[in-house]
Amino acid sequence: MTTLQNDVICALATPNGIGAIGVIRVSGKNCLDLISPVFGKNLKEKQSHTLHFGTIRSKEGELIDEVLISVFHDGKSFTGEESAEISCHGSAYILQRVMDVLLAQGCRMAAPGEFTMRSFLNGKMDLSQAEAVADLIASESKKAHEIALNQLRGNFSSELKELRERLIHFASLVELELDFSEEDVEFADRTELLELVTTVLAVVTRLEESFELGNAIKNGVPVAIVGAPNTGKSTLLNQLLQEDRAIVSSIAGTTRDVIEETLNIDGILFRLIDTAGIRENAEEIEALGIERSRQKIEQAKLVLCMADASISNSLDEVRAWKNELQQTYPNKRLVVIANKSDVQTQELSDSEIGISAKEGFNIAALKNWMVNQITQGADLQNETIISNIRHRDALSRTREALQQAKTGLETNITGDFVAMDIRQAMYHLGTITGNISEDDLLANIFSKFCIGK
Amino acid sequence: MTTLQNDVICALATPNGIGAIGVIRVSGKNCLDLISPVFGKNLKEKQSHTLHFGTIRSKEGELIDEVLISVFHDGKSFTGEESAEISCHGSAYILQRVMDVLLAQGCRMAAPGEFTMRSFLNGKMDLSQAEAVADLIASESKKAHEIALNQLRGNFSSELKELRERLIHFASLVELELDFSEEDVEFADRTELLELVTTVLAVVTRLEESFELGNAIKNGVPVAIVGAPNTGKSTLLNQLLQEDRAIVSSIAGTTRDVIEETLNIDGILFRLIDTAGIRENAEEIEALGIERSRQKIEQAKLVLCMADASISNSLDEVRAWKNELQQTYPNKRLVVIANKSDVQTQELSDSEIGISAKEGFNIAALKNWMVNQITQGADLQNETIISNIRHRDALSRTREALQQAKTGLETNITGDFVAMDIRQAMYHLGTITGNISEDDLLANIFSKFCIGK
Repeated sequence: MTTLQNDVICALATPNGIGAIGVIRVSGKNCLDLISPVFGKNLKEKQSHTLHFGTIRSKEGELIDEVLISVFHDGKSFTGEESAEISCHGSAYILQRVMDVLLAQGCRMAAPGEFTMRSFLNGKMDLSQAEAVADLIASESKKAHEIALNQLRGNFSSELKELRERLIHFASLVELELDFSEEDVEFADRTELLELVTTVLAVVTRLEESFELGNAIKNGVPVAIVGAPNTGKSTLLNQLLQEDRAIVSSIAGTTRDVIEETLNIDGILFRLIDTAGIRENAEEIEALGIERSRQKIEQAKLVLCMADASISNSLDEVRAWKNELQQTYPNKRLVVIANKSDVQTQELSDSEIGISAKEGFNIAALKNWMVNQITQGADLQNETIISNIRHRDALSRTREALQQAKTGLETNITGDFVAMDIRQAMYHLGTITGNISEDDLLANIFSKFCIGK
Repeated sequence: MTTLQNDVICALATPNGIGAIGVIRVSGKNCLDLISPVFGKNLKEKQSHTLHFGTIRSKEGELIDEVLISVFHDGKSFTGEESAEISCHGSAYILQRVMDVLLAQGCRMAAPGEFTMRSFLNGKMDLSQAEAVADLIASESKKAHEIALNQLRGNFSSELKELRERLIHFASLVELELDFSEEDVEFADRTELLELVTTVLAVVTRLEESFELGNAIKNGVPVAIVGAPNTGKSTLLNQLLQEDRAIVSSIAGTTRDVIEETLNIDGILFRLIDTAGIRENAEEIEALGIERSRQKIEQAKLVLCMADASISNSLDEVRAWKNELQQTYPNKRLVVIANKSDVQTQELSDSEIGISAKEGFNIAALKNWMVNQITQGADLQNETIISNIRHRDALSRTREALQQAKTGLETNITGDFVAMDIRQAMYHLGTITGNISEDDLLANIFSKFCIGK
């Protein structure tokens, strides 16, 4: 990797805005030597993990704040470097001034994620754990939080490590044969190897496929409620919001559309798209509104197609329409919801849900359906779920290399080709955690060359 | 005062929003006993001012976050109580969950300001210092910050303490006489006493009067730019904003009008009111616009009356208008600004300022005028400036009581009346720092009774 940077970085670690306290993080070799002169106490001689009360003054001696400084010694901090956290009064003015003082002392403004990057570079965490830090901070629901925390705790990394170790064993055996290629020995039992590759391939494929779920959980699941006017879309929306409105829906700084409402059902975040449209009276005069709905459906993962069970034709109309939509969008999950089922009972198929949005009848079944479409029986507690697109891509490249190795084994291709495929699979797995040896890197680069070049 | 509360309080101490870290404060008797079980380490046995890395889990064992906890022993924390600060990953979801865990452990959500209130109740700071905490956090400019920090550091409190001590000495001498009233002795030299009261009165009056400045500095000084269309108001506004736009002008959560722009000149915040009006083209077709301007002037402390020096009548018109306004609003500071003075030179009086908004000519003189109207030669570095309306009221009551004592002394009123006035002055001074003895309180209450009741 790149060489470690030895300069001292600083940044505001708490959100902007007014609070009781604001924390400025400082990290880098001998950073305490830069802070001590403006703090008036020698922090360097203090023990790691201790707190010190004092004042921050500018070089000119102007008093800026009374602060509390945490001291972390080299090797014992989040970044793995000598670090400090300065807890100031939470005024934007003060925090700005303290930052100015630190910059004047020779610190540098940290780039986004630079503290975590240093943590990775200093071997405090691997790459996938570092990525989990950002995910953890952004997590808005129980499940997203679980995935990120699992990843931060290194569960995903150890799973990958195990896979890599199996492949290393495999590759070394095959490579050993190459050394003895003229003697035509086989150290590696081809049947056993095929079994091993098949097993690893299955795990990699499962992880890769978990991305769809992980991504939905991380970013929230977009849901569209569509249907003719007066079928009760707005009533359903209110019913759902009233029960499960996500606490965190008002957090600023996300790029989401303002006209979304969010629900938190069983720890999964659902984003109800174009809810403004549902609330507008204008929509009420629209006809079935397929065109407008189509735009919402494009963005959605789940589509609730509302029918009014108290109107004779409504249900059949929605059924036909749903089937047509399903053909256009085979990857979306659609369901027919028969509203007002308390007033008028109509025969529904097993895949359809009869509710009363007004009375709250059978809403639980609808919520179950929504959750099940996402989890699909996955064991969220114990299975590793990936949610990072970079990891998905790496896993997908790993899978391709493994499939090639498998085909090679099945068609009795020579060991050197198989070894090359395995090395490539290992390289791609390695990119996820950042544990790429120079060997891996070289093997990957040169595996793309033709033999003999 | 009220009895100390012994329950454990907790609250998010950092702003809402997404940041790298969020800090939750916990304070109260034996609070570490509530945290230790969910942290899995016995914090109670750790030294004060030490940091501990670990995990927070729910009662059910669910992992919520990896955190860093600061431990503060009884008597050694901000509140003066056993305290802890839990530094979590800055996700709203996590912070909410950690709060939930703390509440389940028996903590209570802190009321606004309750940590600082406990600090006061536990004798860690007096009332005026406690008030300074809020001011410090809200401070948006160098001067506002200086005032708050001075107050937090106890400079105002010690000034008050000195005044009180002088008065106590005075009062005790007079009261001693009362004990010997039948013997008609005079322990207190009336001339010396009069001198002392006069001196204290002068200090109290100065402090009281500093409120106008302190308040302007704390809340920003409202400034109106008024004048006929095309005199260059908008150009001046841009010229000022370009040079000194306050960095903190975008901080949310203030109740200010959105159409204000803020300037930071020499560490003082100026709020330019109704700047939207200046920018609207609509105003350009208005005539001199006195009516509209009058509304702005009502809110302003400084009024910049713009004339166009390149138009023959403009200056005289604005002068007449300014004089009329000054009569209506004797407390506002008005100034005639002759714009386009680079194009056309006209004779200006010493109190008028010729500028060119377009060329930036003499803008420095205008800014000097603005700053001088506020500071008026006050020594902001060394003089105590008050900025809290409660303090102003207490000082004003103190002044009234002192004036009565002074009149009493001058008219040779009997000692008991003088002593009563002095006690009342001391009581009102005492309310500022909260150092009111029961004696003071009783003396104040009963001083309002008629003698003999």
